[in-house]
Amino acid sequence: MASVKLSSGYSMPLVGYGLWKVDTSICADQVYNVLKAGYRLLDGAQDYGNEKEAGEGLKRAIDDGIVKREEVFVTSKLWNSYHDPKHVEKMCRRSLADWGLEYFDLFHIHFPIAQKYVDPEEKYPPTFYCGKDVATMAFENVPLLETWKAMESLVDKGLVRSIGLSNCQGSIILDLLRGARIPPAVLQIEHHPYLTQPALLKLAKQKNIAVTGYSSFGPQSFLELKSTKAENVVSLFKHPLINEIAAAHGRTTAQVLLRWATQNGVAVIPKSSNPARLAENFDVTSFDLTEQEINAISGLDIGLRFNDPADWPEPTYIFA
Amino acid sequence: MASVKLSSGYSMPLVGYGLWKVDTSICADQVYNVLKAGYRLLDGAQDYGNEKEAGEGLKRAIDDGIVKREEVFVTSKLWNSYHDPKHVEKMCRRSLADWGLEYFDLFHIHFPIAQKYVDPEEKYPPTFYCGKDVATMAFENVPLLETWKAMESLVDKGLVRSIGLSNCQGSIILDLLRGARIPPAVLQIEHHPYLTQPALLKLAKQKNIAVTGYSSFGPQSFLELKSTKAENVVSLFKHPLINEIAAAHGRTTAQVLLRWATQNGVAVIPKSSNPARLAENFDVTSFDLTEQEINAISGLDIGLRFNDPADWPEPTYIFA
Repeated sequence: MASVKLSSGYSMPLVGYGLWKVDTSICADQVYNVLKAGYRLLDGAQDYGNEKEAGEGLKRAIDDGIVKREEVFVTSKLWNSYHDPKHVEKMCRRSLADWGLEYFDLFHIHFPIAQKYVDPEEKYPPTFYCGKDVATMAFENVPLLETWKAMESLVDKGLVRSIGLSNCQGSIILDLLRGARIPPAVLQIEHHPYLTQPALLKLAKQKNIAVTGYSSFGPQSFLELKSTKAENVVSLFKHPLINEIAAAHGRTTAQVLLRWATQNGVAVIPKSSNPARLAENFDVTSFDLTEQEINAISGLDIGLRFNDPADWPEPTYIFA
Repeated sequence: MASVKLSSGYSMPLVGYGLWKVDTSICADQVYNVLKAGYRLLDGAQDYGNEKEAGEGLKRAIDDGIVKREEVFVTSKLWNSYHDPKHVEKMCRRSLADWGLEYFDLFHIHFPIAQKYVDPEEKYPPTFYCGKDVATMAFENVPLLETWKAMESLVDKGLVRSIGLSNCQGSIILDLLRGARIPPAVLQIEHHPYLTQPALLKLAKQKNIAVTGYSSFGPQSFLELKSTKAENVVSLFKHPLINEIAAAHGRTTAQVLLRWATQNGVAVIPKSSNPARLAENFDVTSFDLTEQEINAISGLDIGLRFNDPADWPEPTYIFA
């Protein structure tokens, strides 16, 4: 299976299954099914609220002999409410317990944003909740490097194999590298033809940081969230250019979008609950786009970001 | 005179004189002349290589009774080569000595980039030189917050009244705020109709950070540097929209560009060696653009950045 070699020494599959917005009612079955379909990377997060169910699906697949633990690359992400170094290990262990695992292959800092701590007994996952009403966010003065040092100690303790960033810009990545003992192995970012981020990809390459792209289908993931931004642009599934290239290769538009990313060296973590699409999305390294096709798709870039904390209850301009 | 109240308690004039690329052969006279013309803000930097000459001009103006020291707002900027906390005070004192001053009104960190230290005896200012040839840059692992803490101690010692950032993105500003004892009073950024940076301006407003825009005339400053980017776009001085608005107000295009910035709350630091233009550039708060005109000019935004360390000998992606 196609994979990316990480600076930590481990390998990460180039195609995985993303758990964002996978409903708890179907999550265990979904995870079981994707493992059966051949997926070997599960991309979860505390904030997705389904780690327990994902763990159940994984356990069932292991019990049924479909996979061994060590054959699956399991990712989780530290939520914003736990950036204070004193909470990091405790909350990592909680996620491990939810999954029923002894280690994560990769643990990200979800956002470079430190929200006020919320006791998991009070609300878990807390999302934007910071102790008052949801519309009133609150923050903690924990610089990212302090959280990172706590992440590094998770590696030391064997709780996680690789550590990564997510939703970070160039300047804060470079600054973190100036203070990190263990550099981030992976950067997870929004990435699709409407937001191609060429400079950020160059930085990642220069610094030997692997990149995972989320929302590879662009607006698609955000339609169900009633995003006006997403409703206002042409669906990439209906885009004439993507359709034309898909027809030329006898592939689906989803496959073309995923291949465009992976040929750019970006790992992908699509989601689907449709078994046929699951299989299609997984089979995206068995054909190649031409350089001309890749450049044409890249030319769709309009710097359009759907997942932006500037739109949160307290606008947070991490992408300004 | 129009001014901006800073979080440090001091006031900063809304229009100043920028010393970037002012040749040492004319710098003292220029500074003398702009002070005579009414300018009360001098925006310098170690990297501009003319602080001694600027100081001579200032001293002459003070000696001739044109201004008192306390009436002039003097800015300098710590160069990348001195980010290690152990060099910050020494290098600030060197700049003060060059200017012949006892304190700066504002001292910026010039870039969120830490180059390897170069002894001033070896080369000053060092620009990209890091001890080998100019094409080989070298860096130091000093996180920005460590440099910032040394900047804070300059305030404690009375060497500088306000401290600021320059060339920083949202995420690193927010991260610095999580660790700062004294928040940055000013952020200096490239700002013109081709690069309007609305989210960054919103962040600055939200966090009570004043913004100074440099290169207010867009490509103009970069033509003399033979920038292809600058040569490839329409000069803002020749842009039909700017010309039309200038004609409607009986002002110059430069005045319109500066007024567009100041009405957006952005302080400006234009440069000119032509006495008539110096006076025009200074007189930019005596008329108002309509909201419609401001929006039309803002509509020229194409995210075009001219001053980008991604173009340096070692590409440095602080704006990725």
